[in-house]
Amino acid sequence: MNDSTTPAADLAATAAIVEAYLATWLDGRPLPVNLRSAIAHVLFGGGKRVRPYLTLHACAAVGGQPDAALPAAAALEMVHTFSLVHDDLPAMDNAALRHGRPTLHVRDGEAMAILAGDALLGLAFELLADRHAESPLTGRLCGELATATNDMIVGQVYDTLPDFPPATEPLARLETIHRHKTGALLRCACRMGAICGGAPPAALAAITAYAEAAGLMFQVVDDILDVTESAAQLGKETHQDAQHNKLTYPALVGLAASRAEVERQKQTALAALAPFGVAAEPLRQLGHWLAVRTR
Amino acid sequence: MNDSTTPAADLAATAAIVEAYLATWLDGRPLPVNLRSAIAHVLFGGGKRVRPYLTLHACAAVGGQPDAALPAAAALEMVHTFSLVHDDLPAMDNAALRHGRPTLHVRDGEAMAILAGDALLGLAFELLADRHAESPLTGRLCGELATATNDMIVGQVYDTLPDFPPATEPLARLETIHRHKTGALLRCACRMGAICGGAPPAALAAITAYAEAAGLMFQVVDDILDVTESAAQLGKETHQDAQHNKLTYPALVGLAASRAEVERQKQTALAALAPFGVAAEPLRQLGHWLAVRTR
Repeated sequence: MNDSTTPAADLAATAAIVEAYLATWLDGRPLPVNLRSAIAHVLFGGGKRVRPYLTLHACAAVGGQPDAALPAAAALEMVHTFSLVHDDLPAMDNAALRHGRPTLHVRDGEAMAILAGDALLGLAFELLADRHAESPLTGRLCGELATATNDMIVGQVYDTLPDFPPATEPLARLETIHRHKTGALLRCACRMGAICGGAPPAALAAITAYAEAAGLMFQVVDDILDVTESAAQLGKETHQDAQHNKLTYPALVGLAASRAEVERQKQTALAALAPFGVAAEPLRQLGHWLAVRTR
Repeated sequence: MNDSTTPAADLAATAAIVEAYLATWLDGRPLPVNLRSAIAHVLFGGGKRVRPYLTLHACAAVGGQPDAALPAAAALEMVHTFSLVHDDLPAMDNAALRHGRPTLHVRDGEAMAILAGDALLGLAFELLADRHAESPLTGRLCGELATATNDMIVGQVYDTLPDFPPATEPLARLETIHRHKTGALLRCACRMGAICGGAPPAALAAITAYAEAAGLMFQVVDDILDVTESAAQLGKETHQDAQHNKLTYPALVGLAASRAEVERQKQTALAALAPFGVAAEPLRQLGHWLAVRTR
Protein backbone atom coordinates (compact mmCIF):
# COMPACT_ATOMS: atom_id res chain seq x y z
CA MET A 1 0.00 0.00 0.00
CA ASN A 2 1.24 3.44 -0.92
CA ASP A 3 1.24 5.76 2.08
CA SER A 4 0.22 8.74 -0.02
CA THR A 5 -3.08 7.03 -0.76
CA THR A 6 -3.78 5.87 2.81
CA PRO A 7 -6.73 7.64 4.42
CA ALA A 8 -6.15 5.84 7.73
CA ALA A 9 -5.54 8.99 9.76
CA ASP A 10 -8.46 10.73 8.12
CA LEU A 11 -10.69 7.69 8.73
CA ALA A 12 -9.73 7.74 12.41
CA ALA A 13 -10.38 11.48 12.64
CA THR A 14 -13.80 11.08 11.00
CA ALA A 15 -14.61 8.18 13.31
CA ALA A 16 -13.80 10.28 16.38
CA ILE A 17 -15.97 13.16 15.20
CA VAL A 18 -18.95 10.96 14.36
CA GLU A 19 -18.64 8.92 17.56
CA ALA A 20 -18.56 12.08 19.68
CA TYR A 21 -21.58 13.41 17.83
CA LEU A 22 -23.49 10.14 18.32
CA ALA A 23 -22.57 9.95 22.00
CA THR A 24 -23.77 13.49 22.65
CA TRP A 25 -27.03 12.96 20.79
CA LEU A 26 -27.74 9.67 22.57
CA ASP A 27 -26.99 11.26 25.95
CA GLY A 28 -29.92 13.58 25.34
CA ARG A 29 -32.28 10.76 24.40
CA PRO A 30 -34.04 9.11 27.40
CA LEU A 31 -33.34 5.36 27.28
CA PRO A 32 -33.47 2.51 29.82
CA VAL A 33 -30.04 1.87 31.31
CA ASN A 34 -29.73 -1.63 29.84
CA LEU A 35 -30.77 -0.52 26.34
CA ARG A 36 -28.31 2.38 26.48
CA SER A 37 -25.53 0.02 27.48
CA ALA A 38 -26.41 -2.42 24.69
CA ILE A 39 -26.43 0.34 22.10
CA ALA A 40 -23.11 1.71 23.36
CA HIS A 41 -21.54 -1.77 23.19
CA VAL A 42 -22.29 -2.15 19.50
CA LEU A 43 -22.16 1.47 18.37
CA PHE A 44 -18.83 2.31 20.01
CA GLY A 45 -17.23 -1.10 19.64
CA GLY A 46 -14.90 -0.46 16.77
CA GLY A 47 -15.35 -0.23 13.05
CA LYS A 48 -13.59 2.03 10.61
CA ARG A 49 -16.61 4.26 9.93
CA VAL A 50 -16.20 4.06 6.18
CA ARG A 51 -19.81 5.19 5.65
CA PRO A 52 -19.57 8.40 7.71
CA TYR A 53 -16.25 9.13 5.96
CA LEU A 54 -18.04 8.85 2.63
CA THR A 55 -20.89 11.07 3.80
CA LEU A 56 -18.72 13.87 5.15
CA HIS A 57 -16.31 13.83 2.21
CA ALA A 58 -19.05 13.56 -0.42
CA CYS A 59 -20.51 16.68 1.15
CA ALA A 60 -17.12 18.42 0.91
CA ALA A 61 -16.53 17.16 -2.65
CA VAL A 62 -19.60 19.00 -3.94
CA GLY A 63 -18.62 22.18 -2.10
CA GLY A 64 -20.49 21.79 1.18
CA GLN A 65 -19.28 22.15 4.75
CA PRO A 66 -18.71 18.57 6.05
CA ASP A 67 -20.44 19.46 9.36
CA ALA A 68 -23.69 19.90 7.46
CA ALA A 69 -23.64 16.17 6.79
CA LEU A 70 -22.84 15.09 10.34
CA PRO A 71 -26.45 14.10 11.28
CA ALA A 72 -26.72 12.06 8.08
CA ALA A 73 -23.35 10.41 8.75
CA ALA A 74 -24.36 9.54 12.30
CA ALA A 75 -27.76 8.19 11.20
CA LEU A 76 -26.09 6.02 8.58
CA GLU A 77 -23.71 4.54 11.10
CA MET A 78 -26.66 3.63 13.32
CA VAL A 79 -28.40 1.88 10.42
CA HIS A 80 -25.18 0.04 9.59
CA THR A 81 -24.80 -1.02 13.22
CA PHE A 82 -28.44 -2.16 13.40
CA SER A 83 -27.77 -4.43 10.42
CA LEU A 84 -24.69 -5.96 12.05
CA VAL A 85 -26.55 -6.68 15.31
CA HIS A 86 -29.41 -8.46 13.55
CA ASP A 87 -27.14 -10.24 11.06
CA ASP A 88 -25.16 -11.69 13.96
CA LEU A 89 -28.27 -13.21 15.65
CA PRO A 90 -28.43 -16.98 16.14
CA ALA A 91 -31.22 -17.31 13.55
CA MET A 92 -29.06 -15.43 11.03
CA ASP A 93 -25.23 -15.74 10.90
CA ASN A 94 -25.00 -16.91 14.53
CA ALA A 95 -21.76 -14.99 15.04
CA ALA A 96 -20.12 -14.86 18.45
CA LEU A 97 -17.53 -12.18 17.71
CA ARG A 98 -17.56 -8.79 16.01
CA HIS A 99 -14.51 -6.51 15.96
CA GLY A 100 -12.92 -9.05 18.33
CA ARG A 101 -15.62 -8.54 21.00
CA PRO A 102 -18.70 -10.58 21.95
CA THR A 103 -21.69 -9.91 19.76
CA LEU A 104 -24.66 -8.31 21.49
CA HIS A 105 -26.81 -11.43 21.79
CA VAL A 106 -23.86 -13.24 23.41
CA ARG A 107 -23.36 -10.36 25.84
CA ASP A 108 -26.94 -9.31 26.63
CA GLY A 109 -29.15 -12.08 25.27
CA GLU A 110 -31.17 -12.47 22.12
CA ALA A 111 -34.17 -10.36 23.18
CA MET A 112 -31.95 -7.35 23.84
CA ALA A 113 -30.09 -7.86 20.56
CA ILE A 114 -33.38 -7.83 18.66
CA LEU A 115 -34.66 -4.77 20.52
CA ALA A 116 -31.40 -2.81 20.45
CA GLY A 117 -31.15 -3.45 16.71
CA ASP A 118 -34.71 -2.22 16.25
CA ALA A 119 -33.93 0.83 18.38
CA LEU A 120 -30.80 1.68 16.38
CA LEU A 121 -32.88 1.71 13.21
CA GLY A 122 -35.57 3.89 14.75
CA LEU A 123 -33.03 6.19 16.39
CA ALA A 124 -31.33 6.76 13.05
CA PHE A 125 -34.51 8.30 11.66
CA GLU A 126 -35.17 10.17 14.89
CA LEU A 127 -31.70 11.75 14.82
CA LEU A 128 -32.04 12.66 11.16
CA ALA A 129 -35.45 14.29 11.63
CA ASP A 130 -34.35 15.94 14.88
CA ARG A 131 -31.12 17.46 13.68
CA HIS A 132 -32.37 18.41 10.25
CA ALA A 133 -35.75 19.57 11.64
CA GLU A 134 -35.42 23.05 10.18
CA SER A 135 -34.22 21.86 6.81
CA PRO A 136 -36.45 21.33 3.80
CA LEU A 137 -34.08 18.46 2.96
CA THR A 138 -35.23 16.31 5.86
CA GLY A 139 -37.93 14.43 3.98
CA ARG A 140 -35.54 13.74 1.13
CA LEU A 141 -32.81 12.51 3.47
CA CYS A 142 -35.27 10.26 5.33
CA GLY A 143 -36.39 8.86 1.98
CA GLU A 144 -32.81 8.16 0.85
CA LEU A 145 -31.99 6.45 4.14
CA ALA A 146 -35.20 4.42 4.21
CA THR A 147 -34.83 3.17 0.65
CA ALA A 148 -31.20 2.18 1.23
CA THR A 149 -32.10 0.46 4.50
CA ASN A 150 -34.77 -1.59 2.78
CA ASP A 151 -32.49 -2.45 -0.12
CA MET A 152 -29.95 -3.65 2.43
CA ILE A 153 -32.57 -5.82 4.15
CA VAL A 154 -33.64 -7.18 0.75
CA GLY A 155 -29.98 -8.06 0.15
CA GLN A 156 -29.89 -9.93 3.42
CA VAL A 157 -33.01 -11.87 2.40
CA TYR A 158 -31.40 -12.74 -0.96
CA ASP A 159 -28.25 -13.77 0.85
CA THR A 160 -29.66 -15.87 3.70
CA LEU A 161 -33.04 -17.01 2.34
CA PRO A 162 -32.39 -17.05 -1.40
CA ASP A 163 -35.51 -17.25 -3.54
CA PHE A 164 -34.23 -16.29 -6.98
CA PRO A 165 -36.04 -17.26 -10.17
CA PRO A 166 -34.49 -20.64 -11.14
CA ALA A 167 -32.85 -19.31 -14.31
CA THR A 168 -30.79 -16.69 -12.46
CA GLU A 169 -27.07 -17.28 -13.07
CA PRO A 170 -24.81 -17.45 -9.98
CA LEU A 171 -22.90 -14.27 -10.91
CA ALA A 172 -26.16 -12.37 -11.38
CA ARG A 173 -27.33 -13.65 -8.00
CA LEU A 174 -24.11 -12.57 -6.36
CA GLU A 175 -24.22 -9.10 -7.90
CA THR A 176 -27.86 -8.70 -6.82
CA ILE A 177 -26.90 -9.65 -3.27
CA HIS A 178 -23.88 -7.33 -3.18
CA ARG A 179 -25.66 -4.39 -4.80
CA HIS A 180 -28.36 -4.60 -2.15
CA LYS A 181 -26.61 -5.88 0.93
CA THR A 182 -23.48 -3.71 0.92
CA GLY A 183 -23.88 -1.39 -2.03
CA ALA A 184 -27.12 0.31 -1.06
CA LEU A 185 -25.84 1.79 2.18
CA LEU A 186 -22.48 2.91 0.73
CA ARG A 187 -24.37 4.54 -2.13
CA CYS A 188 -26.70 6.20 0.35
CA ALA A 189 -23.74 7.41 2.42
CA CYS A 190 -22.35 9.27 -0.59
CA ARG A 191 -25.73 10.54 -1.81
CA MET A 192 -26.80 11.88 1.57
CA GLY A 193 -23.48 13.68 1.90
CA ALA A 194 -23.84 15.22 -1.55
CA ILE A 195 -27.45 16.22 -0.82
CA CYS A 196 -26.42 17.86 2.45
CA GLY A 197 -23.73 19.70 0.47
CA GLY A 198 -26.32 21.09 -1.92
CA ALA A 199 -25.21 19.07 -4.95
CA PRO A 200 -26.98 19.89 -8.23
CA PRO A 201 -28.30 16.86 -10.18
CA ALA A 202 -25.15 16.32 -12.29
CA ALA A 203 -22.88 16.34 -9.24
CA LEU A 204 -25.23 14.00 -7.39
CA ALA A 205 -25.17 11.64 -10.36
CA ALA A 206 -21.34 11.67 -10.45
CA ILE A 207 -21.12 11.01 -6.71
CA THR A 208 -23.63 8.18 -7.12
CA ALA A 209 -21.54 6.62 -9.90
CA TYR A 210 -18.46 6.79 -7.65
CA ALA A 211 -20.43 5.22 -4.81
CA GLU A 212 -21.79 2.34 -6.87
CA ALA A 213 -18.34 1.38 -8.15
CA ALA A 214 -16.81 1.79 -4.69
CA GLY A 215 -19.56 -0.34 -3.20
CA LEU A 216 -19.02 -3.21 -5.60
CA MET A 217 -15.25 -2.97 -5.08
CA PHE A 218 -15.77 -3.01 -1.31
CA GLN A 219 -17.69 -6.26 -1.45
CA VAL A 220 -15.39 -8.04 -3.93
CA VAL A 221 -12.43 -7.14 -1.69
CA ASP A 222 -14.41 -8.47 1.28
CA ASP A 223 -14.90 -11.76 -0.55
CA ILE A 224 -11.17 -11.89 -1.43
CA LEU A 225 -10.13 -11.13 2.16
CA ASP A 226 -12.35 -13.90 3.44
CA VAL A 227 -10.28 -16.33 1.37
CA THR A 228 -6.86 -14.86 2.06
CA GLU A 229 -6.86 -13.70 5.68
CA SER A 230 -6.79 -15.65 8.90
CA ALA A 231 -9.15 -15.46 11.87
CA ALA A 232 -6.40 -13.99 14.02
CA GLN A 233 -5.96 -11.08 11.69
CA LEU A 234 -9.66 -10.36 11.37
CA GLY A 235 -11.02 -10.69 14.89
CA LYS A 236 -13.96 -12.64 13.55
CA GLU A 237 -14.52 -16.09 12.16
CA THR A 238 -13.25 -16.34 8.59
CA HIS A 239 -13.96 -18.78 5.83
CA GLN A 240 -17.49 -18.61 7.15
CA ASP A 241 -18.75 -17.75 3.69
CA ALA A 242 -17.21 -20.93 2.31
CA GLN A 243 -18.46 -22.90 5.28
CA HIS A 244 -21.99 -21.72 4.62
CA ASN A 245 -21.64 -22.38 0.88
CA LYS A 246 -22.31 -18.76 0.16
CA LEU A 247 -21.69 -17.27 -3.24
CA THR A 248 -18.46 -15.27 -3.41
CA TYR A 249 -16.49 -13.69 -6.25
CA PRO A 250 -13.38 -15.84 -5.78
CA ALA A 251 -15.52 -18.99 -5.67
CA LEU A 252 -17.30 -18.04 -8.90
CA VAL A 253 -14.59 -16.43 -11.03
CA GLY A 254 -11.31 -17.17 -9.19
CA LEU A 255 -8.94 -14.87 -7.31
CA ALA A 256 -7.23 -13.35 -10.35
CA ALA A 257 -10.48 -12.35 -12.04
CA SER A 258 -11.77 -11.02 -8.71
CA ARG A 259 -8.69 -8.81 -8.41
CA ALA A 260 -9.16 -7.60 -11.97
CA GLU A 261 -12.74 -6.69 -11.11
CA VAL A 262 -11.51 -4.66 -8.14
CA GLU A 263 -9.12 -2.75 -10.41
CA ARG A 264 -11.86 -2.13 -12.98
CA GLN A 265 -14.27 -0.77 -10.35
CA LYS A 266 -11.54 1.39 -8.85
CA GLN A 267 -10.91 3.05 -12.23
CA THR A 268 -14.66 3.61 -12.68
CA ALA A 269 -14.91 5.15 -9.22
CA LEU A 270 -11.94 7.47 -9.77
CA ALA A 271 -13.15 8.53 -13.20
CA ALA A 272 -16.51 9.57 -11.72
CA LEU A 273 -14.70 11.98 -9.40
CA ALA A 274 -12.95 13.88 -12.21
CA PRO A 275 -15.38 16.86 -12.15
CA PHE A 276 -14.68 17.64 -8.49
CA GLY A 277 -10.99 18.43 -8.59
CA VAL A 278 -9.07 18.65 -5.34
CA ALA A 279 -12.22 18.72 -3.17
CA ALA A 280 -12.71 15.04 -3.97
CA GLU A 281 -9.18 14.02 -2.91
CA PRO A 282 -10.38 12.22 0.27
CA LEU A 283 -12.88 10.19 -1.80
CA ARG A 284 -10.06 9.36 -4.25
CA GLN A 285 -7.81 8.23 -1.42
CA LEU A 286 -10.58 6.04 -0.10
CA GLY A 287 -11.02 4.56 -3.57
CA HIS A 288 -7.35 3.58 -3.64
CA TRP A 289 -7.49 2.28 -0.09
CA LEU A 290 -10.64 0.20 -0.64
CA ALA A 291 -8.78 -1.70 -3.37
CA VAL A 292 -5.88 -2.70 -1.13
CA ARG A 293 -7.36 -2.68 2.38
CA THR A 294 -6.88 -5.54 4.80
CA ARG A 295 -10.19 -4.80 6.65
CA MET B 1 -72.47 -1.75 24.20
CA ASN B 2 -74.65 0.97 22.75
CA ASP B 3 -74.94 0.64 18.96
CA SER B 4 -74.92 4.40 18.50
CA THR B 5 -71.38 4.46 19.85
CA THR B 6 -70.10 1.49 17.86
CA PRO B 7 -67.59 2.48 15.19
CA ALA B 8 -67.33 -1.13 13.94
CA ALA B 9 -68.53 -0.36 10.42
CA ASP B 10 -66.32 2.71 10.22
CA LEU B 11 -63.34 0.74 11.53
CA ALA B 12 -63.92 -1.88 8.83
CA ALA B 13 -64.24 0.80 6.15
CA THR B 14 -61.01 2.47 7.30
CA ALA B 15 -59.27 -0.88 7.38
CA ALA B 16 -60.29 -1.61 3.78
CA ILE B 17 -59.05 1.78 2.57
CA VAL B 18 -55.72 1.54 4.35
CA GLU B 19 -55.15 -2.07 3.31
CA ALA B 20 -55.85 -1.22 -0.34
CA TYR B 21 -53.46 1.71 -0.11
CA LEU B 22 -50.75 -0.43 1.46
CA ALA B 23 -51.23 -3.22 -1.08
CA THR B 24 -50.92 -0.80 -4.00
CA TRP B 25 -47.84 0.87 -2.59
CA LEU B 26 -46.12 -2.44 -1.84
CA ASP B 27 -46.92 -3.72 -5.35
CA GLY B 28 -44.77 -0.91 -6.70
CA ARG B 29 -41.87 -1.69 -4.38
CA PRO B 30 -39.46 -4.37 -5.73
CA LEU B 31 -39.15 -7.15 -3.14
CA PRO B 32 -38.03 -10.79 -3.20
CA VAL B 33 -41.01 -13.13 -3.56
CA ASN B 34 -40.55 -14.71 -0.13
CA LEU B 35 -40.18 -11.38 1.67
CA ARG B 36 -43.27 -10.03 -0.09
CA SER B 37 -45.25 -13.09 0.98
CA ALA B 38 -44.05 -12.78 4.58
CA ILE B 39 -45.00 -9.11 4.72
CA ALA B 40 -48.44 -9.83 3.22
CA HIS B 41 -49.04 -12.59 5.77
CA VAL B 42 -48.59 -10.27 8.71
CA LEU B 43 -49.77 -6.98 7.23
CA PHE B 44 -53.02 -8.32 5.78
CA GLY B 45 -53.71 -10.95 8.43
CA GLY B 46 -56.42 -9.19 10.39
CA GLY B 47 -56.40 -6.49 13.00
CA LYS B 48 -58.92 -3.74 13.53
CA ARG B 49 -56.67 -0.93 12.29
CA VAL B 50 -57.36 1.26 15.28
CA ARG B 51 -54.27 3.35 14.59
CA PRO B 52 -55.11 4.22 10.97
CA TYR B 53 -58.66 5.02 12.10
CA LEU B 54 -57.22 7.47 14.63
CA THR B 55 -54.93 9.02 12.02
CA LEU B 56 -57.61 9.57 9.39
CA HIS B 57 -60.20 10.83 11.85
CA ALA B 58 -57.78 13.06 13.74
CA CYS B 59 -57.02 14.65 10.37
CA ALA B 60 -60.75 15.15 9.76
CA ALA B 61 -61.34 16.43 13.31
CA VAL B 62 -58.99 19.36 12.78
CA GLY B 63 -60.59 20.18 9.43
CA GLY B 64 -58.35 18.25 7.04
CA GLN B 65 -59.26 15.85 4.24
CA PRO B 66 -58.73 12.33 5.63
CA ASP B 67 -56.99 11.24 2.41
CA ALA B 68 -54.17 13.64 3.22
CA ALA B 69 -53.31 11.41 6.17
CA LEU B 70 -53.43 8.10 4.29
CA PRO B 71 -49.64 7.74 3.87
CA ALA B 72 -49.17 8.46 7.57
CA ALA B 73 -51.90 5.96 8.50
CA ALA B 74 -50.35 3.30 6.29
CA ALA B 75 -46.85 3.94 7.65
CA LEU B 76 -48.14 3.67 11.21
CA GLU B 77 -49.79 0.36 10.52
CA MET B 78 -46.50 -0.98 9.15
CA VAL B 79 -44.67 0.13 12.30
CA HIS B 80 -47.36 -1.48 14.45
CA THR B 81 -47.10 -4.71 12.45
CA PHE B 82 -43.28 -4.68 12.71
CA SER B 83 -43.64 -4.52 16.49
CA LEU B 84 -46.03 -7.49 16.57
CA VAL B 85 -43.74 -9.64 14.41
CA HIS B 86 -40.70 -9.00 16.60
CA ASP B 87 -42.68 -9.24 19.87
CA ASP B 88 -43.91 -12.70 18.83
CA LEU B 89 -40.36 -14.05 18.24
CA PRO B 90 -39.17 -17.03 20.32
CA ALA B 91 -36.66 -14.85 22.20
CA MET B 92 -39.48 -12.43 23.09
CA ASP B 93 -43.09 -13.55 23.76
CA ASN B 94 -42.65 -16.81 21.82
CA ALA B 95 -46.22 -16.62 20.51
CA ALA B 96 -47.49 -19.20 18.03
CA LEU B 97 -50.75 -17.50 17.08
CA ARG B 98 -51.75 -13.96 16.14
CA HIS B 99 -55.29 -13.10 15.00
CA GLY B 100 -55.93 -16.86 15.01
CA ARG B 101 -53.19 -17.55 12.43
CA PRO B 102 -49.62 -18.80 12.75
CA THR B 103 -47.12 -16.10 13.66
CA LEU B 104 -44.52 -15.33 11.03
CA HIS B 105 -41.62 -17.17 12.64
CA VAL B 106 -43.82 -20.28 12.88
CA ARG B 107 -44.80 -19.97 9.22
CA ASP B 108 -41.56 -18.78 7.59
CA GLY B 109 -38.85 -19.29 10.20
CA GLU B 110 -37.13 -17.00 12.61
CA ALA B 111 -34.69 -15.41 10.16
CA MET B 112 -37.53 -14.29 7.91
CA ALA B 113 -39.53 -12.99 10.88
CA ILE B 114 -36.55 -10.87 11.97
CA LEU B 115 -35.93 -9.57 8.45
CA ALA B 116 -39.58 -8.98 7.53
CA GLY B 117 -40.03 -7.05 10.78
CA ASP B 118 -36.97 -4.96 9.97
CA ALA B 119 -38.30 -4.38 6.46
CA LEU B 120 -41.72 -3.28 7.72
CA LEU B 121 -40.05 -0.65 9.87
CA GLY B 122 -37.88 0.59 7.04
CA LEU B 123 -40.74 0.50 4.54
CA ALA B 124 -42.86 2.64 6.85
CA PHE B 125 -40.36 5.47 6.56
CA GLU B 126 -39.88 4.86 2.86
CA LEU B 127 -43.64 5.13 2.22
CA LEU B 128 -43.91 8.25 4.34
CA ALA B 129 -41.03 9.98 2.58
CA ASP B 130 -42.17 8.75 -0.83
CA ARG B 131 -45.80 9.77 -0.61
CA HIS B 132 -45.19 13.01 1.21
CA ALA B 133 -42.11 13.81 -0.90
CA GLU B 134 -43.44 17.16 -2.05
CA SER B 135 -44.63 18.20 1.39
CA PRO B 136 -42.67 20.40 3.78
CA LEU B 137 -44.29 18.27 6.51
CA THR B 138 -42.32 15.14 5.62
CA GLY B 139 -39.44 15.73 7.98
CA ARG B 140 -41.82 16.49 10.82
CA LEU B 141 -43.89 13.36 10.14
CA CYS B 142 -40.76 11.20 9.96
CA GLY B 143 -39.66 12.68 13.28
CA GLU B 144 -43.03 11.99 14.95
CA LEU B 145 -43.03 8.41 13.66
CA ALA B 146 -39.41 7.76 14.62
CA THR B 147 -39.80 9.10 18.16
CA ALA B 148 -42.97 7.06 18.72
CA THR B 149 -41.33 3.94 17.30
CA ASN B 150 -38.40 4.32 19.67
CA ASP B 151 -40.65 5.01 22.65
CA MET B 152 -42.53 1.82 21.76
CA ILE B 153 -39.27 -0.17 21.62
CA VAL B 154 -38.24 1.37 24.95
CA GLY B 155 -41.59 0.18 26.34
CA GLN B 156 -40.87 -3.32 25.12
CA VAL B 157 -37.47 -3.21 26.84
CA TYR B 158 -39.11 -2.04 30.10
CA ASP B 159 -41.70 -4.80 29.73
CA THR B 160 -39.52 -7.77 28.81
CA LEU B 161 -36.12 -6.80 30.23
CA PRO B 162 -37.09 -4.56 33.14
CA ASP B 163 -34.26 -2.49 34.55
CA PHE B 164 -36.06 0.12 36.64
CA PRO B 165 -34.38 1.99 39.49
CA PRO B 166 -35.08 -0.19 42.58
CA ALA B 167 -37.30 2.42 44.26
CA THR B 168 -39.79 2.51 41.36
CA GLU B 169 -43.29 1.52 42.58
CA PRO B 170 -45.11 -1.22 40.60
CA LEU B 171 -47.84 1.13 39.40
CA ALA B 172 -45.28 3.65 38.20
CA ARG B 173 -43.48 0.84 36.39
CA LEU B 174 -46.69 -0.30 34.76
CA GLU B 175 -47.63 3.19 33.61
CA THR B 176 -44.14 3.72 32.21
CA ILE B 177 -44.47 0.48 30.27
CA HIS B 178 -47.95 1.29 28.97
CA ARG B 179 -47.20 4.89 28.09
CA HIS B 180 -44.26 3.72 25.99
CA LYS B 181 -45.31 0.34 24.67
CA THR B 182 -48.87 1.08 23.55
CA GLY B 183 -49.40 4.76 24.22
CA ALA B 184 -46.63 6.18 22.06
CA LEU B 185 -47.93 4.78 18.79
CA LEU B 186 -51.58 5.64 19.49
CA ARG B 187 -50.47 9.16 20.38
CA CYS B 188 -48.41 9.33 17.20
CA ALA B 189 -51.39 8.08 15.16
CA CYS B 190 -53.49 11.00 16.34
CA ARG B 191 -50.71 13.57 16.09
CA MET B 192 -49.68 12.60 12.56
CA GLY B 193 -53.31 12.80 11.47
CA ALA B 194 -53.70 16.23 13.02
CA ILE B 195 -50.44 17.42 11.48
CA CYS B 196 -51.53 16.18 8.04
CA GLY B 197 -54.79 18.08 8.59
CA GLY B 198 -52.89 21.30 9.23
CA ALA B 199 -53.73 21.56 12.94
CA PRO B 200 -52.56 24.74 14.67
CA PRO B 201 -50.72 24.20 18.01
CA ALA B 202 -53.81 24.38 20.26
CA ALA B 203 -55.69 21.81 18.17
CA LEU B 204 -52.64 19.54 18.08
CA ALA B 205 -52.37 19.80 21.86
CA ALA B 206 -56.06 18.86 22.29
CA ILE B 207 -55.75 15.89 19.93
CA THR B 208 -52.63 14.82 21.83
CA ALA B 209 -54.52 14.97 25.16
CA TYR B 210 -57.29 12.82 23.65
CA ALA B 211 -54.70 10.36 22.35
CA GLU B 212 -52.85 10.02 25.64
CA ALA B 213 -56.05 9.27 27.56
CA ALA B 214 -57.30 6.90 24.86
CA GLY B 215 -53.93 5.13 24.85
CA LEU B 216 -53.94 4.53 28.58
CA MET B 217 -57.58 3.38 28.39
CA PHE B 218 -56.69 1.02 25.54
CA GLN B 219 -54.02 -0.70 27.59
CA VAL B 220 -56.01 -0.95 30.84
CA VAL B 221 -58.85 -2.55 28.84
CA ASP B 222 -56.32 -4.91 27.29
CA ASP B 223 -55.17 -5.92 30.77
CA ILE B 224 -58.81 -6.42 31.87
CA LEU B 225 -59.64 -8.50 28.78
CA ASP B 226 -56.67 -10.70 29.41
CA VAL B 227 -58.22 -11.64 32.76
CA THR B 228 -61.84 -11.94 31.60
CA GLU B 229 -61.76 -13.49 28.13
CA SER B 230 -60.94 -17.00 27.01
CA ALA B 231 -58.45 -18.18 24.43
CA ALA B 232 -61.26 -19.29 22.11
CA GLN B 233 -62.67 -15.77 21.98
CA LEU B 234 -59.35 -14.09 21.38
CA GLY B 235 -57.62 -16.29 18.83
CA LYS B 236 -54.44 -15.99 20.81
CA GLU B 237 -53.11 -17.37 24.04
CA THR B 238 -54.63 -15.56 27.04
CA HIS B 239 -53.56 -15.31 30.63
CA GLN B 240 -50.07 -15.13 29.17
CA ASP B 241 -49.43 -11.93 31.09
CA ALA B 242 -50.24 -13.70 34.34
CA GLN B 243 -48.21 -16.73 33.27
CA HIS B 244 -45.21 -14.52 32.66
CA ASN B 245 -45.79 -12.65 35.93
CA LYS B 246 -46.15 -9.42 34.07
CA LEU B 247 -47.48 -6.29 35.73
CA THR B 248 -51.12 -5.60 34.85
CA TYR B 249 -53.72 -3.15 36.16
CA PRO B 250 -56.10 -5.81 37.52
CA ALA B 251 -53.22 -7.55 39.28
CA LEU B 252 -52.07 -4.30 40.91
CA VAL B 253 -55.32 -2.48 41.72
CA GLY B 254 -58.07 -5.06 41.13
CA LEU B 255 -60.76 -5.28 38.45
CA ALA B 256 -63.11 -2.65 39.90
CA ALA B 257 -60.43 0.02 40.20
CA SER B 258 -59.19 -0.88 36.72
CA ARG B 259 -62.69 -0.32 35.34
CA ALA B 260 -62.93 3.00 37.18
CA GLU B 261 -59.61 4.02 35.59
CA VAL B 262 -61.02 3.20 32.16
CA GLU B 263 -64.05 5.41 32.84
CA ARG B 264 -61.84 8.24 34.09
CA GLN B 265 -59.62 8.12 31.01
CA LYS B 266 -62.66 7.97 28.75
CA GLN B 267 -64.01 11.18 30.25
CA THR B 268 -60.62 12.85 29.87
CA ALA B 269 -60.45 11.77 26.24
CA LEU B 270 -63.94 13.00 25.44
CA ALA B 271 -63.40 16.31 27.20
CA ALA B 272 -60.31 16.94 25.08
CA LEU B 273 -62.44 16.68 21.94
CA ALA B 274 -64.88 19.41 22.97
CA PRO B 275 -63.34 22.13 20.76
CA PHE B 276 -63.82 20.11 17.57
CA GLY B 277 -67.61 19.76 17.49
CA VAL B 278 -69.17 17.30 15.08
CA ALA B 279 -65.95 16.76 13.10
CA ALA B 280 -64.61 14.78 16.06
CA GLU B 281 -67.62 12.46 16.28
CA PRO B 282 -65.68 9.41 14.95
CA LEU B 283 -62.97 9.97 17.58
CA ARG B 284 -65.70 10.24 20.25
CA GLN B 285 -67.28 6.99 19.07
CA LEU B 286 -63.91 5.30 19.23
CA GLY B 287 -63.47 6.63 22.75
CA HIS B 288 -66.74 5.01 23.80
CA TRP B 289 -65.92 1.80 21.99
CA LEU B 290 -62.39 1.53 23.44
CA ALA B 291 -63.96 1.46 26.91
CA VAL B 292 -66.27 -1.47 26.15
CA ARG B 293 -64.50 -3.36 23.38
CA THR B 294 -63.96 -7.10 23.45
CA ARG B 295 -60.76 -6.92 21.27
